[in-house]
Formats: sequence, structure tokens, C-alpha cells
Amino acid sequence: MSAFPIDEIVSSLRQVRNEWRSAQQRVAGGERQLPSRAAVDEVVESLIGALFPMRLGPAHLREEGEDFYVAHTIDQALRQLQEQAVQELRHVRRLDAVTPAELRADAEQRIREFALQLPAIRALLDTDVMAAYQGDPAAQSVDEVLLCYPGVTAMIHHRIAHPLYRLGLSLLARMVAERAHAQTGIDIHPGATIGAGFFMDHGTGIVIGETAVIGQHVRLYQQVTLGAKRFPIDENGHPQKGLPRHPVVEDDVVIYAGATILGRVTIGKGATIGGNVWVTDDVLPGASVTQASLQKNRGSRPGDC
Amino acid sequence: MSAFPIDEIVSSLRQVRNEWRSAQQRVAGGERQLPSRAAVDEVVESLIGALFPMRLGPAHLREEGEDFYVAHTIDQALRQLQEQAVQELRHVRRLDAVTPAELRADAEQRIREFALQLPAIRALLDTDVMAAYQGDPAAQSVDEVLLCYPGVTAMIHHRIAHPLYRLGLSLLARMVAERAHAQTGIDIHPGATIGAGFFMDHGTGIVIGETAVIGQHVRLYQQVTLGAKRFPIDENGHPQKGLPRHPVVEDDVVIYAGATILGRVTIGKGATIGGNVWVTDDVLPGASVTQASLQKNRGSRPGDC
Amino acid sequence: MSAFPIDEIVSSLRQVRNEWRSAQQRVAGGERQLPSRAAVDEVVESLIGALFPMRLGPAHLREEGEDFYVAHTIDQALRQLQEQAVQELRHVRRLDAVTPAELRADAEQRIREFALQLPAIRALLDTDVMAAYQGDPAAQSVDEVLLCYPGVTAMIHHRIAHPLYRLGLSLLARMVAERAHAQTGIDIHPGATIGAGFFMDHGTGIVIGETAVIGQHVRLYQQVTLGAKRFPIDENGHPQKGLPRHPVVEDDVVIYAGATILGRVTIGKGATIGGNVWVTDDVLPGASVTQASLQKNRGSRPGDC
Amino acid sequence: MSAFPIDEIVSSLRQVRNEWRSAQQRVAGGERQLPSRAAVDEVVESLIGALFPMRLGPAHLREEGEDFYVAHTIDQALRQLQEQAVQELRHVRRLDAVTPAELRADAEQRIREFALQLPAIRALLDTDVMAAYQGDPAAQSVDEVLLCYPGVTAMIHHRIAHPLYRLGLSLLARMVAERAHAQTGIDIHPGATIGAGFFMDHGTGIVIGETAVIGQHVRLYQQVTLGAKRFPIDENGHPQKGLPRHPVVEDDVVIYAGATILGRVTIGKGATIGGNVWVTDDVLPGASVTQASLQKNRGSRPGDC
Amino acid sequence: MSAFPIDEIVSSLRQVRNEWRSAQQRVAGGERQLPSRAAVDEVVESLIGALFPMRLGPAHLREEGEDFYVAHTIDQALRQLQEQAVQELRHVRRLDAVTPAELRADAEQRIREFALQLPAIRALLDTDVMAAYQGDPAAQSVDEVLLCYPGVTAMIHHRIAHPLYRLGLSLLARMVAERAHAQTGIDIHPGATIGAGFFMDHGTGIVIGETAVIGQHVRLYQQVTLGAKRFPIDENGHPQKGLPRHPVVEDDVVIYAGATILGRVTIGKGATIGGNVWVTDDVLPGASVTQASLQKNRGSRPGDC
Amino acid sequence: MSAFPIDEIVSSLRQVRNEWRSAQQRVAGGERQLPSRAAVDEVVESLIGALFPMRLGPAHLREEGEDFYVAHTIDQALRQLQEQAVQELRHVRRLDAVTPAELRADAEQRIREFALQLPAIRALLDTDVMAAYQGDPAAQSVDEVLLCYPGVTAMIHHRIAHPLYRLGLSLLARMVAERAHAQTGIDIHPGATIGAGFFMDHGTGIVIGETAVIGQHVRLYQQVTLGAKRFPIDENGHPQKGLPRHPVVEDDVVIYAGATILGRVTIGKGATIGGNVWVTDDVLPGASVTQASLQKNRGSRPGDC
Repeated sequence: MSAFPIDEIVSSLRQVRNEWRSAQQRVAGGERQLPSRAAVDEVVESLIGALFPMRLGPAHLREEGEDFYVAHTIDQALRQLQEQAVQELRHVRRLDAVTPAELRADAEQRIREFALQLPAIRALLDTDVMAAYQGDPAAQSVDEVLLCYPGVTAMIHHRIAHPLYRLGLSLLARMVAERAHAQTGIDIHPGATIGAGFFMDHGTGIVIGETAVIGQHVRLYQQVTLGAKRFPIDENGHPQKGLPRHPVVEDDVVIYAGATILGRVTIGKGATIGGNVWVTDDVLPGASVTQASLQKNRGSRPGDC
Repeated sequence: MSAFPIDEIVSSLRQVRNEWRSAQQRVAGGERQLPSRAAVDEVVESLIGALFPMRLGPAHLREEGEDFYVAHTIDQALRQLQEQAVQELRHVRRLDAVTPAELRADAEQRIREFALQLPAIRALLDTDVMAAYQGDPAAQSVDEVLLCYPGVTAMIHHRIAHPLYRLGLSLLARMVAERAHAQTGIDIHPGATIGAGFFMDHGTGIVIGETAVIGQHVRLYQQVTLGAKRFPIDENGHPQKGLPRHPVVEDDVVIYAGATILGRVTIGKGATIGGNVWVTDDVLPGASVTQASLQKNRGSRPGDC
Repeated sequence: MSAFPIDEIVSSLRQVRNEWRSAQQRVAGGERQLPSRAAVDEVVESLIGALFPMRLGPAHLREEGEDFYVAHTIDQALRQLQEQAVQELRHVRRLDAVTPAELRADAEQRIREFALQLPAIRALLDTDVMAAYQGDPAAQSVDEVLLCYPGVTAMIHHRIAHPLYRLGLSLLARMVAERAHAQTGIDIHPGATIGAGFFMDHGTGIVIGETAVIGQHVRLYQQVTLGAKRFPIDENGHPQKGLPRHPVVEDDVVIYAGATILGRVTIGKGATIGGNVWVTDDVLPGASVTQASLQKNRGSRPGDC
Repeated sequence: MSAFPIDEIVSSLRQVRNEWRSAQQRVAGGERQLPSRAAVDEVVESLIGALFPMRLGPAHLREEGEDFYVAHTIDQALRQLQEQAVQELRHVRRLDAVTPAELRADAEQRIREFALQLPAIRALLDTDVMAAYQGDPAAQSVDEVLLCYPGVTAMIHHRIAHPLYRLGLSLLARMVAERAHAQTGIDIHPGATIGAGFFMDHGTGIVIGETAVIGQHVRLYQQVTLGAKRFPIDENGHPQKGLPRHPVVEDDVVIYAGATILGRVTIGKGATIGGNVWVTDDVLPGASVTQASLQKNRGSRPGDC
Repeated sequence: MSAFPIDEIVSSLRQVRNEWRSAQQRVAGGERQLPSRAAVDEVVESLIGALFPMRLGPAHLREEGEDFYVAHTIDQALRQLQEQAVQELRHVRRLDAVTPAELRADAEQRIREFALQLPAIRALLDTDVMAAYQGDPAAQSVDEVLLCYPGVTAMIHHRIAHPLYRLGLSLLARMVAERAHAQTGIDIHPGATIGAGFFMDHGTGIVIGETAVIGQHVRLYQQVTLGAKRFPIDENGHPQKGLPRHPVVEDDVVIYAGATILGRVTIGKGATIGGNVWVTDDVLPGASVTQASLQKNRGSRPGDC
Repeated sequence: MSAFPIDEIVSSLRQVRNEWRSAQQRVAGGERQLPSRAAVDEVVESLIGALFPMRLGPAHLREEGEDFYVAHTIDQALRQLQEQAVQELRHVRRLDAVTPAELRADAEQRIREFALQLPAIRALLDTDVMAAYQGDPAAQSVDEVLLCYPGVTAMIHHRIAHPLYRLGLSLLARMVAERAHAQTGIDIHPGATIGAGFFMDHGTGIVIGETAVIGQHVRLYQQVTLGAKRFPIDENGHPQKGLPRHPVVEDDVVIYAGATILGRVTIGKGATIGGNVWVTDDVLPGASVTQASLQKNRGSRPGDC
């Protein structure tokens, strides 16, 4: 006899699962109907290799074989991504009348559009790498930046996740984003819109919300939050969804470590936000905001959220 | 001859090890006497699969095979956990007169009690998933929450680690907790008591101390600290152990990003703690504390620790 | 025909790569010329095992076989590290006239010097473990500290990375450091100089800059930044490199969570820096700085960076 | 440019493939439509473990957990086997009008019947193990026999393959049989009917044909062939399929190394066939056939095929 | 102290190695200078996949992605094969004055010629598959033959090994051949010349010697040997190398199980060799040789070697 | 509900297992008490690497690191082998009164004696490699022989297995031997005594019995059997164990393919046995035996067993 009452535990666990499923009005299905983390990991690794074959691809690749590698790798990765998209779409629409063939065609169409953006993704990432190289005096080469900087790792993920989000695959997009979050401590919602040449130094603790809009050549330090204030409530007391609720950050802004910017405010072109300040109002282009300036100029305290 | 003076380095390393062992009054043993990280990882992965078989278990599992999977998986995982518990108990009691059979029986007894709590753990985690789904306007389904949210990942680990801690297996509990810390940047001491429906949004940088007590339906944002003030010192100048030294957070409290609450204070039911505030005193039920309110109402400065 | 226009995407990706390479003035090479993350991971894992064979080495090792394990492991690891050093040196000097044999000899010389420091690295790490054990009332044994504490994990990496940095292998050093950063959320630049008995509690979000100098028996809590103020600019408007720009922290200093210390200031021996304070000036030995004290004594606001 | 004319080779390979496909009248399909070797390997490994859990199952299994292991393992293995059966059935019937659901139900029905035979398979294998133990003076325990004897390994495979063959899954059956062939050099067609207590000593080079019928307690040595004579030809000059064309070997027969028995002859109960003899006629029960006896008694030479 | 006298054993082993090396007049080298089995295995697996992508390639490949897969796979495999060829050529010529660059160019040239033969190899293998399908009444489809028949597995290896042998890479060729030998028990020397449509039924124990020449549409059964008689000796008593010493087997010959044909004899077109016969003389076209006929017609005994 | 009646099958399988166990008079144990194939495989791979570090050891080993590799490898392998020996000894003596500590000491003693023979094993294997190189005109280097020849692979295993057999670990010895059997088709009982310079060409199908004694510089071709005649029977009708029942083959003998030698006969020094002959009597030193000579000289037929 087992030292542990396995049968009893199995039976209690089944009961708890059944309560959950019944509360969720799940019909007893057979197969799993969710994208798989492992599959998403594989797809992302493949896409990263295909985007930067000689630096983040397989160790033994040679330049003359790049195109063969890239072609095979994206062929496989897109196919696998399409399968995961089918899982997500089936999950989302599970009460609708959609045939498997329709689901499949729908997924294929979305992934095709995603695929066509890959060259643009690479071009954008090159600007991010360049921004990191130029923005950090300690950076010794563009390749070091690509290999080592967590901010760059996070952006590779975000620039893959964002088009997926826009193509209606928000669960897959989220899985890609959380992969970066776990690796880097940088939490960018895949819905955020981020311009070219974006650089996050150190990065740990940065949070960027779903409706944030960031211009070109913006620089952020660790523990910066671009968040929402309390959510607007509709007449039924529910949070209103889909409203723009995160900051707009215009071109050439620099935001120092620990600064918190909340709500649909605009940080004007070229402004500088000092470390640890708390901003809930618009900032004029070119302005420089510090804790001291805040107190002096506005007569109010940061942190009134 | 080797390019590197291997023999010399080996010999110096041996000498340093010996110094350490002699300073630690270690007797030369034969085998390793510590739980293994790899084994703990395997146990945790197995338990996670057994708790959520169709969503976090093996990709090809089908609902009709769930119970077989759960039974075999927990049978193996509990056995392996028992072995690791033997390692911890032997390590802890290594100077005592305990026979291997007694150690084994002791470990078995503790793991049996742990095992019986698995269904309750699952039920609690369901409330956490629900809280995250309801608390985040961006959440699109309970499954997305379970799959993607680092706060939920951290709680799965905590709800496994906490019973181990209470059963006197604090090293194993700590190893489970640090696994979550590494993955999510959320640092919950396994000793912390946390009620149902707990939700941490974003999560990076959250720290919750050993004697913290958290009620039901509490919500925390990133970089919140529930910490200790300086430790009380006993007559010999040593920190007093085991005293309650972290906050009590009652039901329905919300604590915004970056807030720091230190010491055995009580945050009353339904209170709201604003972003970045520093709290070292009790907060009344229903109160709303912001940096501004702190200054106004209390005439004192946060941060006097 | 493929559902995805693979050929077209491959061709566009090639074009983007070519633009990047041409902008970077890369000559078309054949092989990859960068250290490999996987190889660095393997080297670090091997060195960690060799430094702490019975606690972080292979599970089945026995004390009587330690030296055999250590000898073989460092023999292989140093050889592999030398190969990665060749990659880095070739990358750095790729326009110079250096023969492969010279590169190889150069790398060998540097790795030999690194190797000879391994015993000292172990001895230093023993002091860090001891400091964590003594500094945290929750720590139950030195072995728990070594196995579980992210601050110790980060220091193991740093004490490997720092000598590599000093030996001119800054890319490899950075790769080692970022490995710790990803695992622990602690971001220590490999250039930072850190004395014996260093302890970081919780750790997430700590940032320590390249030219920081830290004495003995210093303790840091989570989210402490030892950073630079804005970089001094030379006559051409470029940041001046190599200048000391991060704090000097003398022996026995304690810095509480969230404190930010910027610029080449000195925190005097035995000083205490309170939580969340913002320091940009020297602090006297033995002083205790809190947000309140800052306001009172200096009449100025933190955060003027 | 690549050192190898990859594009040209790819294009020539495509042309050769197209010629083959067109010669085979294949319509261009999308997916692979064949069982996978890797999947069959996994299924067989699982079934072997489930049949002999404590001896050929996972190393850490304990007797009290056997049933949990067996239940989960066969649940997964049968499911996987069903999928492979769908592949085979689709392959076989690829020109027919069968819906996927019909294929699936058909496969399920066959695998269910297979599954119900597992206990009988184990019981038969126990008799084979016993026969080997009793038949070989060198055998020291029944467990040694199960672990080490290639003849037993081959029979485990055959006793799995034969029911699959009888259930119309002859491709899967063949894949199982060839797995044993590759491991042991013993080539038993899955169609062969073999009674209880069958023992093959040494085994290498044994060949047993599709329509062979072997009674109980038969013993064979290495390089014995139970083969067909030249195939009977039908009026169109094609080999006639499905006719019994291999020997019938009755109970208690012993056949020594290198003997060749060809055609639908009957070797009577208890007969002995000497080493290297060539038999193409019936042998009476109890008879002893050697090369000498053949010459003497029959005045003919072996080998007239 | 170790239970085993490791140091003593290591030292004795070193001494034995040194004796061997000194007897072999090896100069102490640094690195290994032999092709690696693991690398050859990988190359062969890749080539097999590239030759039969939809049947022996990766499970998830789809027809529309075949060319991408084939291109990338052979690009990598040929590169890896070239590296192994460098190892072999360096090994062979280790006393010559060959620069690394010359070795590399030599290897590249040979592998390029090999690569150009891949389409012809596939075309030949298609004839072998067809011959097996037509020659075995039990074969149910050409795909079963490709997937399951050890004779076909052996020919895939031989048709890869033979061109390598002809290009002077006989060690690599041998490694490929022995891979098939281990899997199938069929031992074909890579030097043997074998025409289209070759079929080996069952196969175990077949041996085909280095200078054997086999025509088209030849069929062999298990344990057939096409071997050499005793080697001709030159004036110094050494075996003469390079002389044709194995049989010539013309088109359409069938050789039954266990037959042994030795020396440079010719088996004429369309001849049949019976089971177990021993042939050391030419056989006329169309003749049928059995043990009986041998005795009758030639008055001599087989086996006089 | 599952498509397959899992519970019913599990229950029937349990019943069959119980019948077996009860017939075998097994007491219900907990853990597995048999050596593990996987562990034996690992040990053998390690020993092979330690015996031939630069040719069969890890690819990246360099000569200057050989001793470190060898020391660590045999330290681990011997330890693991000792554990497997404990399993075998416990299995063998399971009804005896042996304490775990006694078992452990017993195993240690045997493995220590085995370990001391490793250098002699290497020296013997060098003579086998040399014999193969000199005996096969096709062999191009001693390294090709070591890497490629199945006869050499089989001898590496035998020269490891034989001392284990002599030390009373016959189950482990058998597992090692069957590993070679599966890889090469060569079946050498670990009890066989084989002198230096032993060469098996091609090898498939060779069988060498437990009490065979083979001198120095003996050469065998494929499918040679050195077997037993029918076993002598004792008064109770059981085969008598332990009697010498296989041939003695003196120095310098050559035995051609397919020859069968049965019983405790002696093949005198320098004799030659022709292909396919059947020998059951002594052969004089220097004699040459062929099928023809057998008939002529002895008036008897082979095959009378």
C-alpha cells in the first residue's frame, strides 16, 4: 500500500476541478485547447534566429548558408505559429459556429500578415540596437548590445508580440511578452506602440501599459512605470475597456529611473523626467521635470493618484 | 603539459574548502547531504501539472486520462519530495541521534500531511486566478491568466511552499519560493500567510516578509514591499527571531505600486495605499493613504525607519 | 505552394541584413565571430560546480572524488573559456594584424591569470555566504544561503565576471553578469569593485554601476541604485569614457531598499542610508541619512539630478 | 556564395522526387501520412514498461505505485498508438471514401481490442521467460533472462506485434518487429503464430516467416530459418499471396543452430532437428534428423530448393 | 580517501597509453585528429532526411516546405561532412607537408563532388525500394519498404558510403557502412559496386566484400557471403592489396540464404544460386546451382577453400 | 470516459503479475532490486572513454587534460558500478542474512579488484587492435580499426565483462556482453577466456560459449560457433552445470566463416578450420580441416550432434 493516500487525493482533486469547470460552464471536452508555452518558446527562438542569423542563430552557421537557414526556419516557425493561433482562436470562439477549416484559414491569414512584417521588425530592431550602443557609454560594440542587453532582449520580444496583438492574437502576444518579462524583469504590454530607436537601460522593473504610445528615440531607465490611473468606471460600475489610459511619450524624451507617469498624459518632445518623480499631468516639450521642480512650479505633491 | 596549472589550482581550492569546512566544524562526510535543486524543480513541475492537468500538464493529455496522469504524477512527486525532505531533515539534525529509518518515517509523515492539502491548494489557486481575471481589465480569459500572469505563477509556488514551511521543511519551502522569485521577480517568503483571491498585478519587485498576514481579496501592484523595520534586539545584541515583524493586511485592501509598508502594522479592511507611499503606522479600515494625505494628516515624513 | 511567401520574406530579410552590414562596414565574413551564450553558460556552470563541488556540483559526487572532479572540470572549462576569449579578442581586434596563433596565446595568457584567481574567488564567496547568514535572521544555515539566496547567486557570477573584466575580456564578463541579472534581477556591472562579506537582501532591482567601489561588510536591500549622474561631456559633446562616475561605499555601510545614490560621492564607513532616499552628495562616516534628515539638514530636495 | 551548389542540388533532388511521385501516382498532399518510427518506439517502450513495471519500467518505481504507473502509461501509449493507427489506416485507404471520424473510430476499435489482450500477452511472456530459464544451464535467474536475453527481447516485441498484425495494422506490426530485428538480429514476421514457452538461444540470424505456426515449448538456436520455398505462381506469373507457405512446428520440438526448414512442412511433436540440416519434407513426431540421417534415410541431398 | 586507488590506476593507464603511442611512433599532439562518430551519425541522419524528406524527414514537415528543409539540411550536413573529411585527410597525411588551407580546400573539393551525386543516389535508391516491393510478396506498399526493410536501410547507407570511398574518404565511408552493419547485421564494404534495383531479403549476416561487383536487379537472401578466398601473397609474404578478389555478380542473379561465393568468380546473368551452397568457380549465365547439382556436375565438394 | 477500459486492463495486469510473483515466491518488496540497463550503459561508455581517451573519449579532450578526464571518469564510473554490484549481490542473496553494510563492502572489494585490472585490459585491447590491423588487408590504420571494427567493439566489451564475471558479478557481466551482442551481432559469453591478439573479421553471428578457452593470435570469421554439444545429464536428469563443455582453441588458429565447433575438443596450435565445416573432434596442431578433408580422412559426416 502506498505511504500516501493517492486515490483519495486524486478523487478530491477531481472534485475541485469539476467545481471549477462547472463554475466556468465548461463542457467536458477531450483535448487541450490552449496554446502551449513550449511551442511558443520554440517559435520565438526560431524567429530570433531568423532575424539575426549570424549573431543569435546556430553557432555553426556560415554566412553563405544564411538564406537556407532563414527560409527553413521561418517556414517551420510560421507553420507552428499558425497551429498555436488555431488554438487561440478556437479558445476565443469556442461557443461560435466556426468550422475547423475556417479557423485554420483565419489563422493562416493572420500569420501571413505577421510574416510579411518580419523584415520591418528586423529594421526597427536595428535602430533599437543602435540607440543602445549610442546611449550607453559602457557599450563597446553593437554586437555586445545585441547579445547582452536585457532592454534589447525585451524589445526583440515586443516587436514580435506587438504585430500579433494587432492581428487579434492577444493571448499569443501575451505569452511572448511574458517570456521577456520573466527573462528581463521588463513588463511591456504587447499592445503598447513604440517608435524606432527605443532604449531601456538596466531595465528591471520597467512597466509599460497597453495603450501607451512612445515616439522615436526615447530612453528609459530601470523601474520607470508608464501606467494607468484608476480606471474610468461606466454606469454599471465596471471598468471601461479599450479607452486610452496610458501616457503618450513623444520623440526624444528621456525618463530617469523610478519615475512614474500615470494616465493619458502627454510628455512633450524632448522633455526630461527626473528620477523617482511622479507625473500625472502633461509635460511641455523640452521641459525638465524633477522632484524639486514639481514642488516649486506646481505647488502640488506627486503621488496623488 | 597543460596550459593551465591545474594541479596547483586544484590544491589551492582544496585548501580553501578545508578552511571553510574546518571553520564550519564539518566532519568529513561522504555523500552530499542537501536537497537538490534539480529534484525540487522536477517535483514542482509535477505538482503544477497535477494541479492543473489540462492547462499546465502535458500537451497531449486528454480529459479522460486526467486521473491516471494525476495519480501517477503525484505518486512519483511525493516520493521524490519525501527523499528531498529526508535530505533536509538529515541536514538539520545532523548532530542528533536519529536513525535513517526514523528520518524516513518523519519525512513520510510530513509529506503525507502536505499531500492531503493538495486539493485545498488547488481550490485556493482557483480564487487567485479569478481575482486576477476580475481585477485586470486587460485579462481576456481565466486561462490567459493562469498561463501568462507572473503573479499567478508566484502564487502557485507560494501555495505549495507555505504548507512545506509550516510542516517544518523550511529549506525545501525556500527553494520553491526562490524558483518563483527567479522566474517572476516576486519575492514572497514561504512563511507569509495569504488569504484567498490574492492578486499581484505586474508583480516585479514585490517583497512580502516571513510573518506578513494577508487577508482575502487583497490586491498589490509592482514593487510593493511588506517588510520589517529594524529587528528588535535581545539583551545579547542578537536579532530576536520568530517575532511577528511584518504587516497585517486585512481583507479587500489595495496597495499601489512602489508602496512600502514596514513593521507589524495593520492595514485595515478595505483601505487603499497609494503609489510610492511609505507606511510605518496602522491604517484605519477604509482609509485612503497617499503621499499628500500622509503629509497633511500626520505632519510627519515617511521614511523614518 | 507554401501558404506563406517565404522566398519574398527571405529576400527582404537579406536586404535588411545587408543594409545593416553595410552601415556597420562589415566585410562579408564566413564564420560567426562572437562568443556563444551557450558556451558561456556551460563554463559558468562548470566553474560554479568546481568552486562548490559538494553543494552545487553533481548530485552523486562524494567527498573522496572531489579533486578528480574539480581537476577535470576546470581543465575543460578553462579550455572552453579560452576559445570564447579568442572569439572576443578576434571580434575586438578584427581590423588589426593579429595572427590566429597570437590571438590564441593572448587568450591563453589571460585565462591562465583568471584561473589562478579561482581559490581567492572561493575564499571571497565564503565571506559573502557568511555575511548573508549573519545578516538575515531568517537564514537557517550557511548551506541554505548558498543554495537559495539570489544575492549569493549574483555574487558568484560577479566574482567570476570581475576578473574577466579586469583581464580585458569585458564582453565575456558582461555575458556572465547578464546571466545573473536574468536569474536574479540584480544588475551589477562587471567593472564594479566589491569587498569581502557583501550581502544583498532580496535583491530584485539592485543596480551597481561600472566604476562603483564597495568596501567590506556592506549590506544592500532591494532596488538600491548605485548609479551615475548625467555623464560629463567632453569638448566634442561626447560622453567622457572611463571617468569614475559611480559612488564609493566604504566598509560597514547599510543601504535600505529603494535608496538611490548617484555620482562619484563617498558614503563614509559605517553610515546608514534609509529607504527610498536620494543621495547625490558625500555622507559622513557613521551618519544616518533618511528622507526626513535630508530635508532638515540640507534644506534641499532629493532628486535634483 | 556557398562552397556547394546547394540550389542546383535542391532542384535536382526535387525533380527526382517528382518523378517518383508521378510514377507512384501520388497526388500532392500536404502533410506526412505515415506512422512515425519515433512514436512507435515510444509506444513500445511504454508497453514494455507497463508489462514489466518493476523490472523494465522506470528505475525509481516502487511496488505500491505500480498501478498508477501502469494506468497512466497505457492510457498515454494506447492513445498514441491509436494516432499511429490512424496514420496507417489513412495510408492504406487513401483512395477510399473514409471520413476522418470513421478512420478515428476504426483505429480506436482496433486499439481497444489490442489493449484487452495486454494481460494475456504478459502471461504468455512469463512462459517464455520460464522456458529460457529452464532451457539454458547458464541462466541464473528469471530476472537475468528478462533483462539480458535477446531471444526474450524479440518475443516481447513479437507478442506485441502479432495482435496488431491480426487486427489489420500490419505496417505498425512490422515496425515493431523490425525494432526487435535491429536490436537482436532475430527476424520474426509479425504474422507468425507462436505458442507458449518459446525459447530462442543466442538468436542471431533466426528468420521466421509470415505463415509459420509454432506450438508450445519449442526451442530454436541461432541462425535457424523457418522459411518459404519458391513461391507458388498463379496463372499470370505473379506470386500467390496469402497461402500458407512456411513450416508448422509442433509442440516440444528442438531445432539446432543453422538448420533450414523450408515450405509448408510439418515438424512433428517432440522431433529434433540437428545443426545445419536442410529440411524440405515433413518430419515425424519424435524423429531426430541430422545431416547423416538425412543422407542415410532419404538418399537425397538437402538443399534442393 | 577514495575506496579505489584512482591515482595508481590513472598512472598505470597513462603508462600503457604511452607505450602504445611510442610503439605507434605518435608525436604528442594536442587535439583529437579523427572524425567523430557522433558527427558522422548526424550527417547521415541529415542526408537521409534530405533524400526522403516526407517519409524519413522531420515529422511535421509539409510538402510545401520541402525545398527549404532540403536546402538548409544539406547546407549544414555538407559543411559538417567537410569538417570530418578534414579530420580524415589530416589523419591520413599527418606526416606530409600539407597546410590547413590546402587540407580544407581538398576536403571541400571532394565533398562538392559527393554533393553533386545526391540526386543520382536518390534515384538509385528508388530503384532499390521498387525491387524490394516487387520482390517480396509480403510487402504491402513502397512506403512500408522504405520505412521497415533493413535491406533498404543498408542500401541507403551504402549508396552514401560508396561515393565517399571513391572520393578517397575511406574512413568516413567505413564509418557510414558500420553504422548500417550495427543496425541491420548487413556488412557491405563501402568499396563494393552495386547496380540499380538491388534487394536483400531479411539480410542478417550478409557480407559483401570490397571489390565485389554486382549488376542490376540482383536479389540476395540472409547470410549470403560474397567474399575473398585466401589472399594472394606477394614475394615478401604480405597480402597483395588492391587486387580484385571478390565475386562479379551479373544482372538478374538470385542468391538464396546461406550461400557462400568466394574469390574473383563470375556469376553469369540470370543465374540462380541455391541455399547454403559454396561456390568458388564461375557459374554460367542462366545456370541453377544447388548442393545437389554441385555434387552431380562437378564431382567435387564445396568448401575447398 | 476513456475510449479504452484502462481500469479493467490495469486490474488484469496486476492479477497476472501477482500470479507470477506468487509462483516465484517473491515477497512483496518496495524498491526495484536489479541493476539498471541505463546505469550499465553509462558505466561502459565511461570506461571505454577512460581506456581510449583521445579516440573514444569526448570530442574536445586534449592530450594535456587526459589524466584529469581519466581520473574523474573512472572515479564516477567505479562508484556507479559499485552501486549496480550492490543491486546484483542483493538480488542474488536476497534470502540470506546479509546487512546492507556487508553488501556494500563486498561490492566495493570486487569493484576495487576490477579497477586494478583496467590497465591490463587496455594493454590486451591494444593487441587486439593490432591483430585486426595486421589481419585485414583492407584496414588502413589502427585508428580506423578501433573506431569502426565491430570485432573490436565486441572485444572492448568482453575484456570488461570477463573480469566482472570472474569476480562473481555474472549478471552485470552478462549485461555488458549483451550490449555488444546487440550492437555487433557477436555473442561472446562473458565466461569465455580469450588470449591476446584476438581478431574477428565481419563478426556477425559469431557465438562463443561460457567455458571456451582461446589462445593468442586466434582469428575468427563471421558465423563461427564455438558451442556445446548436448549437455551431460546428471542422475536426476538435470543438465550438469559448471563442466567445461566448449572448445579449447590454441594459439594461432584460424577459423573461417560458418564453421561450427562443438564440445570440449581441442583445436591444436596453428590449425586452420575451413568455412562451414562442422567439427566435434580434436584437431591436431597445424592441421587444415575442410569439408573435403573431413569426408576423406574421417569417413564420417559432420553434423552428428
